[in-house]
Amino acid sequence: MRWIDPPSGPAIELLDQTRLPLVETTLTCTDVPTLIDAIRRLAVRGAPLLGIAGAYGVALAAARGDDVPAAAAAIERARPTAVNLGWAARLTLDAYLRALDTDKDHEGKRIAALAALRAAQSIEEADRVACDQMAAAGLTLVPDGAKIMTHCNTGALVTAGHGTAFGLIKHAQSAGKLAMLWIDETRPLLQGARLTAYEAKRAGMPYRVLADSAAASLMAAGEVDLVAVGADRIAADGSVANKVGTYSLAVLARHHRVPFVVVAPVSTIDFGTADGKSIVIEERAPHEVTELGGQPIAPVGSAAYNPAFDVTPPDLVTAIVTERGVIQPVTEGNLRVLGQEP
Amino acid sequence: MRWIDPPSGPAIELLDQTRLPLVETTLTCTDVPTLIDAIRRLAVRGAPLLGIAGAYGVALAAARGDDVPAAAAAIERARPTAVNLGWAARLTLDAYLRALDTDKDHEGKRIAALAALRAAQSIEEADRVACDQMAAAGLTLVPDGAKIMTHCNTGALVTAGHGTAFGLIKHAQSAGKLAMLWIDETRPLLQGARLTAYEAKRAGMPYRVLADSAAASLMAAGEVDLVAVGADRIAADGSVANKVGTYSLAVLARHHRVPFVVVAPVSTIDFGTADGKSIVIEERAPHEVTELGGQPIAPVGSAAYNPAFDVTPPDLVTAIVTERGVIQPVTEGNLRVLGQEP
Repeated sequence: MRWIDPPSGPAIELLDQTRLPLVETTLTCTDVPTLIDAIRRLAVRGAPLLGIAGAYGVALAAARGDDVPAAAAAIERARPTAVNLGWAARLTLDAYLRALDTDKDHEGKRIAALAALRAAQSIEEADRVACDQMAAAGLTLVPDGAKIMTHCNTGALVTAGHGTAFGLIKHAQSAGKLAMLWIDETRPLLQGARLTAYEAKRAGMPYRVLADSAAASLMAAGEVDLVAVGADRIAADGSVANKVGTYSLAVLARHHRVPFVVVAPVSTIDFGTADGKSIVIEERAPHEVTELGGQPIAPVGSAAYNPAFDVTPPDLVTAIVTERGVIQPVTEGNLRVLGQEP
Repeated sequence: MRWIDPPSGPAIELLDQTRLPLVETTLTCTDVPTLIDAIRRLAVRGAPLLGIAGAYGVALAAARGDDVPAAAAAIERARPTAVNLGWAARLTLDAYLRALDTDKDHEGKRIAALAALRAAQSIEEADRVACDQMAAAGLTLVPDGAKIMTHCNTGALVTAGHGTAFGLIKHAQSAGKLAMLWIDETRPLLQGARLTAYEAKRAGMPYRVLADSAAASLMAAGEVDLVAVGADRIAADGSVANKVGTYSLAVLARHHRVPFVVVAPVSTIDFGTADGKSIVIEERAPHEVTELGGQPIAPVGSAAYNPAFDVTPPDLVTAIVTERGVIQPVTEGNLRVLGQEP
């Protein structure tokens, strides 16, 4: 993600993740509707990056002289589950409105737009720092010679730094602790096979891709020492909404006594959502399941169940690793101690 | 599957399952190597149908005047996990050798070939009858208004009748007991999305396809009353080898207190295999996971973990439904009572 400001006007440059790993294309969003479309299509995705994109989106609306509160609200609605999107959009809007408050003329709007851009940049920078802090905090949970399983994609593609769960895995690699990274392909959109394998390959990690349904037999064979995943929203009670299949892994990990660790910045914790039942789960289009690359893989007209996320209850989560330290055991009290603003 | 005997010589006609549901093509196997290739490529697949194909393969070798014991041995080796393949090939070879024993001249070979063909036909007919018997026996396990989840493909495409697990589901539909069939897409080769959805659609069932990893959240939501699957090999202790992902479903079903039922003919029980650890699991090529329809879905050169099957221990299996009745609880003793020749 990159903020650019050529003579033609400001824009946000994004790597189009839908075409990776085969094609590396950049999308240039010169207005908020284009950015929202990119968010909906998952061209840009992953909770932390969605936050950064949302923040820059508000800054873009401000720089263009659009209706900034309306743009922030539209960005927040683009996807319902990832909390970071709304959080960062609101934070940037607040910075804009505070700056505007003092001076509402043309010059005032220009200054407020700069304040929004600075807010977005600081959200991005804070995320970069948080990645390193999470990796450092989580390393104690990684045994020597670890065979780690992960789901979906949580690396440099979705954060400003090395990633959340993937950042920890990369740190484990640097520390000489990583023996194998098992990558769930992560159906239906294959973010594991496409994106995490792409990042693992570039990082020179030992890795193997597997069908999501093969995870259980690996655990039964004693080939998994740790499951590490990210999160899209963590409720006040510690329930974790993340890519569909995460809850499945958590149940399997419990059955096989494998530690199940969630790595997520504090901004992912939503104290306004009491528990797992209150988390809105996005249902996506059936064709994501029934077609692949535009080709039908089920009989035409087949209905599908296609939730983008699932919810893992706190009792199945061994620990939540944040940039402020490790939450273990995962209880509402421990979450509040670490999660609330210092 | 169809035995044909035109003037050009006998052959086995198969529906090419690799191209379903988009294309319905027939493969004609005029010799055993062609049949073995079809078995290896999964053009013909599913434990009961593999048995029937193996039997007709031996009959084909006999009709052609090939080395019949060598052909039977080659067929048995084509895939290591499904027990029915070797069982039916050996049964047909025995019929051939017994008939040959009495008369080893040219006319004797012709009569023995006919005996082999008759053995294959009776294996096919017995499978047809077994499907109906399994469906009738298993119906007591299906509640009214049942929402049933299944994995892989176990219907008319893989048996001579209505199927094993799918036969039970179809019988439940006829009895007015089926409210919803949840079809796991069954990665990597998508036999659920491609084949079970094809059969469900033709049968007019209410069904929805889902990514394998979404099964857990459906169970958590109380949307699954029963999991019904087939089996490729059942060890003497009741361990069930079946399509990869079956064990995952069994663990999830136990966690959510959902009954987990295996529907399989007695020929699937292999008393020569003591337990789950002794079952040979076929590892298939990485490209089945890393490519789809010839297109790479992971970075080129990515390694994959791709077992075709997994093993579910007997304590996770609520019941095994056979043509001779229901085995519940699943213990070695109960298996022997029902499973051994009457």
